[in-house]
Amino acid sequence: MSHENFQECIDECLACLKACNYCFDSCLQEEDVKMMAECIRLDRECADICGYAADAMLRNSPFAIQICQLCAEICEACGTECKKHDHEHCQKCAEACFRCAEACRKMAA
Amino acid sequence: MSHENFQECIDECLACLKACNYCFDSCLQEEDVKMMAECIRLDRECADICGYAADAMLRNSPFAIQICQLCAEICEACGTECKKHDHEHCQKCAEACFRCAEACRKMAA
Amino acid sequence: MSHENFQECIDECLACLKACNYCFDSCLQEEDVKMMAECIRLDRECADICGYAADAMLRNSPFAIQICQLCAEICEACGTECKKHDHEHCQKCAEACFRCAEACRKMAA
Amino acid sequence: MSHENFQECIDECLACLKACNYCFDSCLQEEDVKMMAECIRLDRECADICGYAADAMLRNSPFAIQICQLCAEICEACGTECKKHDHEHCQKCAEACFRCAEACRKMAA
Repeated sequence: MSHENFQECIDECLACLKACNYCFDSCLQEEDVKMMAECIRLDRECADICGYAADAMLRNSPFAIQICQLCAEICEACGTECKKHDHEHCQKCAEACFRCAEACRKMAA
Repeated sequence: MSHENFQECIDECLACLKACNYCFDSCLQEEDVKMMAECIRLDRECADICGYAADAMLRNSPFAIQICQLCAEICEACGTECKKHDHEHCQKCAEACFRCAEACRKMAA
Repeated sequence: MSHENFQECIDECLACLKACNYCFDSCLQEEDVKMMAECIRLDRECADICGYAADAMLRNSPFAIQICQLCAEICEACGTECKKHDHEHCQKCAEACFRCAEACRKMAA
Repeated sequence: MSHENFQECIDECLACLKACNYCFDSCLQEEDVKMMAECIRLDRECADICGYAADAMLRNSPFAIQICQLCAEICEACGTECKKHDHEHCQKCAEACFRCAEACRKMAA
């Protein structure tokens, strides 16, 4: 991997962590929380792996590539769920998830 | 602190982590998810600090006492919220939270 | 996966987290810390993924299997490094790592 | 707290997480690792709390202030240790730690 991909991937993971946490918080304040249940669950999953992946890259982990592969998969799932909901926080979260998934795949390539 | 308090506290943190994660998952599957929103939020907060506190004690962190003080406070808040709900997972979670808060206070004393 | 494998895997992850944190702490107190550098690095990596994997299983994560596959790989690497050192904390850590790797592979099978 | 302090604090936590992880990795590659043992231990402690604090602020945690108070204390301790060592990674880490401690105290004020 190039150093550029590495830095881009860290930035996308942190942006995605932020978007997922914001979406988690916002979903819990929606009128119809039940409809957002899967979104809430996946936002937490995705925030956790993004934080873990960014941390791993920042400490030069020998497993950064495998961690990013897993991160791409979870981001993809979270983005796909968020994409279904019209709320702005969900749409923005989906976008951050797909960008992060893409950056993680580039890292792992 | 005595070695006994230390081991007891680790065990209570892990039991509380387990109860909070189970409660989080169960709340998201309830009929009325909206009513559980604050419970879901605090379950995640509490699971995070319990995992962090157990990890800190297990690595002999020089900050274990301060981390346990914070853990006690968050467990107390999560237990207080869970206690309000009649679901078995909430009542069991409240119990685990209060036990963990007590163990953390003993550690920090 | 069976419920039994699941519970066994959580227990092994927590035992491995404990052994890795103890080994990390002990390595830093050894006379020849330089010789332990790779062990220290991998103990941290392994403790992190074990905590993450246990947490994921405890919250019934839809990605538990993939996380356990990654955990098995990191445990294997940490165990292989620890195995090289005669210190009791390293030998015990290696044992915990290999047991955890085995339990994670069973989970993921 | 103002929104500005909040954003500044997140940024400083992430910068400190980065500096601590880089310092951890660099210390393990130094000629005299033994001399760096306490630095290695505190780098890990500090990276952990900084990641946890940033994550908590990003998810609008009701305990963000208490977590930042703890973060300030650990950053201060890590910065004080790093400051003793002439290596560039230690000096830069000390600087990041003190800046983060300051931002966390402002948040908690």
